Amino acid sequence: MVKLLTAILVFMALGNTTAFASEDTRPFAIAVHGGAGTMSRAAMTPERERAYHAALRTALQAGHAVLADGGTSLDAVVAAVRILEDNPLFNAGRGAVFTAEGRNELDAAIMDGATLNAGAIAAVTRVRNPILLARAVMEHSPHVFLIGEGAEAFAAEREIPFVDPRWFHTDERWEALERARAAEISRAAHEIPYGTVGAVALDRSGNLAAATSTGGMTNKRWGRVGDVPVIGAGTYADNASAAVSATGHGEYFIRSVVAHEIAARMRLAGRTLEQAAHEVVMEVLVERGGSGGVIAVDRHGNVSMPFNSDGMYRGYMKSGGEPVTAIFRD
Amino acid sequence: MVKLLTAILVFMALGNTTAFASEDTRPFAIAVHGGAGTMSRAAMTPERERAYHAALRTALQAGHAVLADGGTSLDAVVAAVRILEDNPLFNAGRGAVFTAEGRNELDAAIMDGATLNAGAIAAVTRVRNPILLARAVMEHSPHVFLIGEGAEAFAAEREIPFVDPRWFHTDERWEALERARAAEISRAAHEIPYGTVGAVALDRSGNLAAATSTGGMTNKRWGRVGDVPVIGAGTYADNASAAVSATGHGEYFIRSVVAHEIAARMRLAGRTLEQAAHEVVMEVLVERGGSGGVIAVDRHGNVSMPFNSDGMYRGYMKSGGEPVTAIFRD
Repeated sequence: MVKLLTAILVFMALGNTTAFASEDTRPFAIAVHGGAGTMSRAAMTPERERAYHAALRTALQAGHAVLADGGTSLDAVVAAVRILEDNPLFNAGRGAVFTAEGRNELDAAIMDGATLNAGAIAAVTRVRNPILLARAVMEHSPHVFLIGEGAEAFAAEREIPFVDPRWFHTDERWEALERARAAEISRAAHEIPYGTVGAVALDRSGNLAAATSTGGMTNKRWGRVGDVPVIGAGTYADNASAAVSATGHGEYFIRSVVAHEIAARMRLAGRTLEQAAHEVVMEVLVERGGSGGVIAVDRHGNVSMPFNSDGMYRGYMKSGGEPVTAIFRD
Repeated sequence: MVKLLTAILVFMALGNTTAFASEDTRPFAIAVHGGAGTMSRAAMTPERERAYHAALRTALQAGHAVLADGGTSLDAVVAAVRILEDNPLFNAGRGAVFTAEGRNELDAAIMDGATLNAGAIAAVTRVRNPILLARAVMEHSPHVFLIGEGAEAFAAEREIPFVDPRWFHTDERWEALERARAAEISRAAHEIPYGTVGAVALDRSGNLAAATSTGGMTNKRWGRVGDVPVIGAGTYADNASAAVSATGHGEYFIRSVVAHEIAARMRLAGRTLEQAAHEVVMEVLVERGGSGGVIAVDRHGNVSMPFNSDGMYRGYMKSGGEPVTAIFRD
């Protein structure tokens, strides 16, 4: 009996040691984006460019710290996206673009590749960090997708932090709206027509997660919702293939079910992450006229970040590596 | 010169004749559903059963008539879905279930397999036929997805018919809400927990289309949106594979991107329509706990209508055939 107990204890100890050791050497990775679009180097001051790189690095380091501590990919993508939401440089949370009515209406989504659980919200106006609400929908409601005032009622029940809508205001986005109104176009020809932020991550347990958050399109009307909260279009994660977060002209990303299409090509057609992401962004979307890009990570920690626009604010950071960030094509 | 002209004219005439002749003999097909769920034969009176069969037949015949006249699959699915929306037997349009607040909030989507254009709306309360609004979004807006009051503002601009919200009221659905409230559950244990209506069609030009419309879930809260307006989940069409309209526990259908997954298995993994639809509904969804079914048609006019629930109101009608309708498994 004592022998049996000892054997069991030794087995458990060894089992745990082995598990911890192998988890410590398993790869992990995080990638983030801060939107894609028509960006010209000419319009970008060195100071502004540095600010974008610094913001992307801060988000990457926050997510990387979670993963390095053995945290989950869900915690990592939320940590990274919160930072980008709070940064007025990006079209999500603070710094979101304005609707035609002069409001900020925010969309976000998150997906857990281990369980295929997902949470999405659209058209909230007072939740400081929409990604926190999307996560609460996934974890604390029987639903996947909540919108508008109903979503905010749920946020209040969950005690998700609210802010005065003025929190989201930035002069730069307001001026973009005024230019768009003057031009009577549905979006301004400003720097980031399709701004969005997002993160994808692989954690040491081999679990993938994706998160995306956006203010949508400047001067948007009629309660327009883009691809971000459409699970499969702008946000998707499945441990069997990849975690994907998209940024671009949302209507095209919805029609091509972009994020799920990349995952499906890996799972059903044997493509690598790089092949699948490249085919969908650089071939399918280009043929169909859909401008933008994606960030994606697979279960081996490979990262792919193709985009067919002039630029995409982007970066990645792998286990033990340094953050790598970029804006333009080269 | 005269010879050349004559040759061209003869060629054109022959070409046209051939084209017309082949269009006349090309297959066309339409399928419809009126929701899936836990239905017991015991709870179904013969009179009620006849009413369901008659309603499905009427919808099929309306769509078939459009296709037989050489009309488009888009016109056919809209004709069929409008009839089901107006029929109080089904949870869409008139007869929609009530939200926790005692309102009818309607969702709908449509997709054109030839162009991959799509239109979707969520949470409208005064548009008589949500499918007409979804189509207007697809054809007359630069967007794919509009929600709430914004979607209704667009409907007003397009002169889509409005009704007083009382139009949607039926005593049966109100009683279902009262039972759900009494039981403090998010849906009533009534006959059709996941009611939805939908249609898929192949027209003589070889174009596919899908349309879906729903009142959602009895006693739904927080602005809950299901799979219907999520392109790729409840509604999808691509001439390269299939047109699919789903009905079931929407959250599971969103997470599995059901309609696009069926199309992707055909396009990427060489499955037939029957194989792909069966795998996703009877294997993937069953493993994940997602109750419901789909109707699907491919470019050859094959129809598949698998469901993993007790029953699904369903039917199909092929070129030159009679309408075939069914409710239970056998």
